[in-house]
Amino acid sequence: MDVTFDGTVVSGDSEARERFYDSRGYGTPRDGALELAPVEAAHLLFRGDLRSVTDSRPDGEGELDFHDLLSSAAVSEVAFFVYKELRDRGFYLSPAHRDKAVDVARAKEFLVYPRGKGPWDDTVAYRVRAVSERERVSASDLKELAEQGRETDTPTAVLAVVDEESEVTYLELGSPAIEGTSNHNIPVLSGRLLSDRVLVTDPPDALYHEAFYGQPLDRDEQPIQLSLVEAAYLTGCGLLTVDTDRETEGVSSTQSGHDALIERGREVEGERFDRRLSTYRTLRESGVVPKTGYKFGADFRTYADVTDVDNLGHSELLVRVVPAEHVFSPRDLALDVRLAHGVRKRMVFALTGETVEWLSVERLTP
Amino acid sequence: MDVTFDGTVVSGDSEARERFYDSRGYGTPRDGALELAPVEAAHLLFRGDLRSVTDSRPDGEGELDFHDLLSSAAVSEVAFFVYKELRDRGFYLSPAHRDKAVDVARAKEFLVYPRGKGPWDDTVAYRVRAVSERERVSASDLKELAEQGRETDTPTAVLAVVDEESEVTYLELGSPAIEGTSNHNIPVLSGRLLSDRVLVTDPPDALYHEAFYGQPLDRDEQPIQLSLVEAAYLTGCGLLTVDTDRETEGVSSTQSGHDALIERGREVEGERFDRRLSTYRTLRESGVVPKTGYKFGADFRTYADVTDVDNLGHSELLVRVVPAEHVFSPRDLALDVRLAHGVRKRMVFALTGETVEWLSVERLTP
Repeated sequence: MDVTFDGTVVSGDSEARERFYDSRGYGTPRDGALELAPVEAAHLLFRGDLRSVTDSRPDGEGELDFHDLLSSAAVSEVAFFVYKELRDRGFYLSPAHRDKAVDVARAKEFLVYPRGKGPWDDTVAYRVRAVSERERVSASDLKELAEQGRETDTPTAVLAVVDEESEVTYLELGSPAIEGTSNHNIPVLSGRLLSDRVLVTDPPDALYHEAFYGQPLDRDEQPIQLSLVEAAYLTGCGLLTVDTDRETEGVSSTQSGHDALIERGREVEGERFDRRLSTYRTLRESGVVPKTGYKFGADFRTYADVTDVDNLGHSELLVRVVPAEHVFSPRDLALDVRLAHGVRKRMVFALTGETVEWLSVERLTP
Repeated sequence: MDVTFDGTVVSGDSEARERFYDSRGYGTPRDGALELAPVEAAHLLFRGDLRSVTDSRPDGEGELDFHDLLSSAAVSEVAFFVYKELRDRGFYLSPAHRDKAVDVARAKEFLVYPRGKGPWDDTVAYRVRAVSERERVSASDLKELAEQGRETDTPTAVLAVVDEESEVTYLELGSPAIEGTSNHNIPVLSGRLLSDRVLVTDPPDALYHEAFYGQPLDRDEQPIQLSLVEAAYLTGCGLLTVDTDRETEGVSSTQSGHDALIERGREVEGERFDRRLSTYRTLRESGVVPKTGYKFGADFRTYADVTDVDNLGHSELLVRVVPAEHVFSPRDLALDVRLAHGVRKRMVFALTGETVEWLSVERLTP
């Protein structure tokens, strides 16, 4: 059996095609013979199904073994570990971009067939991108991967993160629509700005109990304190006027304290405040109630169907707000997703730019 | 009853002392009369035990109510919420620094007496510092607070974090000694550097099974892959030599690849690699085995008493490595501590400078 490596692709003869492609889904047929990606050849070498491949480059090094191929630039370790892990789980899979010269990230993408299926069939279960826990992955890349999954309705988009001990964690990426049925009808209120929140002394019952704004300062439920982001949203809607010292000092403040609240918000949180406010507004306008997610290390936890605070269900989502151009560390992603999973909530990132886009990330066991 | 506020301290007459200090632990006696911190007076106003206090400043504003005091600079909202929350839980507590002019952070510290005890007794259960979830707290401040707790053997040092909806989370700070009994006896090995790890082709059984270095690449346990930090530690000890391309290119590499590994580590992780390596070394030298903590979003999980990998217990600690001058966001602290709690491990921060110091953080319900 003749198998050669030209520095980019591993080529086998028709015997290799029969043994590796026809019966076990490695590589792709080319004119009756076989073309293998280096990562596929490395797996065959690792298993001992191939003893070596012949380096056919002009300055070639003769016969290459598993270690040679794994330490060459043609095989990404991280891609190899993911390839091996999925094979070990009983899947057949192929490089997603076998033909084209693609960028480094796409070169580590695989199409994974449903169990029992292979490259001969026309269904794909997962599109998996392998990354090292140390790589940084941009929100826009993840969003693009997630959208690919949605547009074709299949396959599921997956990020496979390889840690420093070569264990693989699978994260399913989604591009969810976030909608709820929470709605309310509250009268115009007035409040007083403290340093970090707004106190509403005589709130109507609906403010907290039906619309789920703020938090009672005490058990007897008077007064209600609003967070700065809640107060900024309500003043923006014209449902709240806030007395601020600044107003009396003659600083112009349109919309009944709205500007002063935003100014205060930026003082305590920087530009994060604007991102959180636009996410808050987007959620409220979609019928979803955001409350603080501090205890979970997130920006918000959310309730999709609030009618009465005394009959509140479990909150469904944890939302972390990041700029659209954010770059994730897989380590931080793992932390968020693990925590959300532990409290039976779905982790969603709000990617904020001119609009707010949603990216969900969940653990997956293929 | 005569109660006045001079801008710094609230003073009451002897009737106030009887009603508030003698029977309920507010304030401190001064010449038979009473001195209250503004936060204590705010709580009495909030409860309706005091109707108002008289502003005795030259440009005073007459009678001050709860809202006036809470929105004045003399009372921190965050301190008030923590004071109220602990009172609601049935504790008596006092400002920790009643007399002195102290910095802003210390001004929000309370001494909390054991349930049923008060300022008349001489035991303190907790030293609690109130912070807003938005404040940043330095590692050195937390370490100092934790050490105070340890030096006097009591009270327990606690950080009380107030979120934007004014809920309080209590974090117990500790300054633990970290020690174990893991030890090993392995021969000198050789390995091969891949891009992100080292492969040891013919490992002795003890390497993984007894000393718990690395991870088998496959079920049959040959070869063993070492992470860069493990390999850098072992080369530093003289227990491993590593073939690296760099050596053959003539770059000087003392200690059998040690320098090349450190260089590679810095390439993929930046200066974090040095901090992780010094933490790794400190743990190994204390008889504790660190393994990757990636799945928990941490640097390491640790095992104190490894003799045989097949009988490995539950890992005890999650370790996050930060520079000694690190500044924490309470939100991130909450995330780490919550996750560690969820997987029944203790969260420990390695504060790395010339030496490694330990800071433990755990949830507490007073």
